Amino acid sequence: MHSNIETKPESVALTKTVKRGGCAAKLPAGALSKILQSLKLTRPAPLLVGMEKFDDAALWDLGDGRLMVNTLDFFTPIVDDPVDFGRIAAANALSDVYAMGGSPALALTILAFPTAHLPLELVEPLMRGAVEKIEEAGAGLAGGHSIDDETLKLGFSVTGFVPATRAWTNANAQPGDLLILTKALGTGVLISATKEGKAEPEWINEATASMAQLNRVPELVGDLEIHAATDITGFGLAGHAMEMAVGSGVQIEINTDQLPILSGALESLRAGILNRAHKTNLEYTADKVEWSQLPAEWRWLALDAQTSGGLLLSVAPQDAEEVLRRVRAQFPRAATIGRVLKPSTQGGSALRFKAD
Amino acid sequence: MHSNIETKPESVALTKTVKRGGCAAKLPAGALSKILQSLKLTRPAPLLVGMEKFDDAALWDLGDGRLMVNTLDFFTPIVDDPVDFGRIAAANALSDVYAMGGSPALALTILAFPTAHLPLELVEPLMRGAVEKIEEAGAGLAGGHSIDDETLKLGFSVTGFVPATRAWTNANAQPGDLLILTKALGTGVLISATKEGKAEPEWINEATASMAQLNRVPELVGDLEIHAATDITGFGLAGHAMEMAVGSGVQIEINTDQLPILSGALESLRAGILNRAHKTNLEYTADKVEWSQLPAEWRWLALDAQTSGGLLLSVAPQDAEEVLRRVRAQFPRAATIGRVLKPSTQGGSALRFKAD
Repeated sequence: MHSNIETKPESVALTKTVKRGGCAAKLPAGALSKILQSLKLTRPAPLLVGMEKFDDAALWDLGDGRLMVNTLDFFTPIVDDPVDFGRIAAANALSDVYAMGGSPALALTILAFPTAHLPLELVEPLMRGAVEKIEEAGAGLAGGHSIDDETLKLGFSVTGFVPATRAWTNANAQPGDLLILTKALGTGVLISATKEGKAEPEWINEATASMAQLNRVPELVGDLEIHAATDITGFGLAGHAMEMAVGSGVQIEINTDQLPILSGALESLRAGILNRAHKTNLEYTADKVEWSQLPAEWRWLALDAQTSGGLLLSVAPQDAEEVLRRVRAQFPRAATIGRVLKPSTQGGSALRFKAD
Repeated sequence: MHSNIETKPESVALTKTVKRGGCAAKLPAGALSKILQSLKLTRPAPLLVGMEKFDDAALWDLGDGRLMVNTLDFFTPIVDDPVDFGRIAAANALSDVYAMGGSPALALTILAFPTAHLPLELVEPLMRGAVEKIEEAGAGLAGGHSIDDETLKLGFSVTGFVPATRAWTNANAQPGDLLILTKALGTGVLISATKEGKAEPEWINEATASMAQLNRVPELVGDLEIHAATDITGFGLAGHAMEMAVGSGVQIEINTDQLPILSGALESLRAGILNRAHKTNLEYTADKVEWSQLPAEWRWLALDAQTSGGLLLSVAPQDAEEVLRRVRAQFPRAATIGRVLKPSTQGGSALRFKAD
């Protein structure tokens, strides 16, 4: 999905202008949550959900049946084409509103632009790609803030709304639920492979199209019974599924044979292409995940930090087939990848991977 | 107002870790608004005010008598102490909500942290200073996003609310109004002087205290008749007053003898300490400002980019004295600095400076 729209400064390969990319450039997962905990924040009464893990969306009760969803995300280039990078940065930021079951309303730009290294004309295609996705979401771009900086960063703060009666959290998965993942895995390793010049063009195209797709799942599933949802981002499938399991007080079992995978992801992992997030996500999940006999590349895939990854839905069993059918109309790679079990009574792990 | 609270990594002088500081590191004022205009944004119906100039807050009609205010800002260190930098970054971001007449509700962190150059322990005092100000504002810190980066940047996206009947804009100043400025001018040049090692400690302390003070003006003035308001930030007094004049279709006259000025600001300007924002703000205001016989350092002062600057209020004449009295209880440097005139019929400038 590299843009067909002509962009003048296309001689610049954006990913070559940065050292680290996408969610792989996050600070260590545990560090900030520890600092925020130590600060003993005072939470105003309408603030239902804060971002204790410094990674999700905040929920604010408007007191009239609506909840306001606030979130923000930004990162360095992960693809070379500016229009595509704009699309992905927007789709990624909008995703947290969808993960709460909501609809985005407006977005503000977070832009750091290296005027010393890149022509200012590059801002136009970046913003054009972003606006395309923001308006596709039915939201409006309402401005933002920009600075001159050493490396390009683009992102958005997004505000959306969700009826209080149908807001999703990641903490209500119930034993018996089936788990549906809406997008294929592997964007993290494919971004690293791109930077190392080891990605096939068709791998990049497929990953780019996947990252640019909006997670407009709430409108597809309507009133079907979704018990919990999360979007798969920096902590990878393992990290976010683990959080869902711990938050919900359940055990989650994922069948690796069912995982949808982007072309080139497993090959790249087998070739030893790893980034820092693989290691930090391994540490983040160390105590709570049982890997069984999973080959190394599959484990790294489950730990792969996703940019604009899919939603993981925990669905009441009677609705799972219909949810999958509806989601597949827009997300052909969507799949049922596991199930929710009662918490282990023998002190077992919160998350367990198995192959058939 | 350098912090008395002990901060371990205080051997690091934050301003030495960056090349540019505060709002002076903004992209050229005109560039982004041109790009956004060329994109022909679709504005959802409830989005009353977008950020066409990429610099203010967005207003969203919640449809129940409340407007939602969304804004964001972030920048590199402008003072050396991490607690003070956290306080200023928060006060600065919260200010746009106050400039709309609103009350902040929640804030999300925008943090870029150079783990290669600074100890991660520095995040704690940064966030402690920020949380102090966010909670003083009655709002809650609800998380955010952090990345590893070459230079430290800190800021916040802030959401607040204001009753529709008392929302302020910068576009309703009326002939006859008096103009009140709540904080003294000169933070931009004093930040530059600090970085060049040419600022006296007492200058820095006074500027730091001013920047860390919350613009809690709406609650002070209650129902007194404020026709227009703006906060003085990156475009300086001249740029923001010009925008108010143009937006309101009036002429604004500022009396430089009345301007409140931070200690050391004029001295530093006389010594030739200027930053890039002085030049870009001169260009930004070139067509619309009449400088009269103003000495150079006074002109640069009016063009000085402010970080967490004061509010400029356009007040109905019968209420001006009472507004000033109430504001001075918290802002002792507040002053009446000018007045609003009918638009010039001879094609005169939107903004005029004069000395008594």
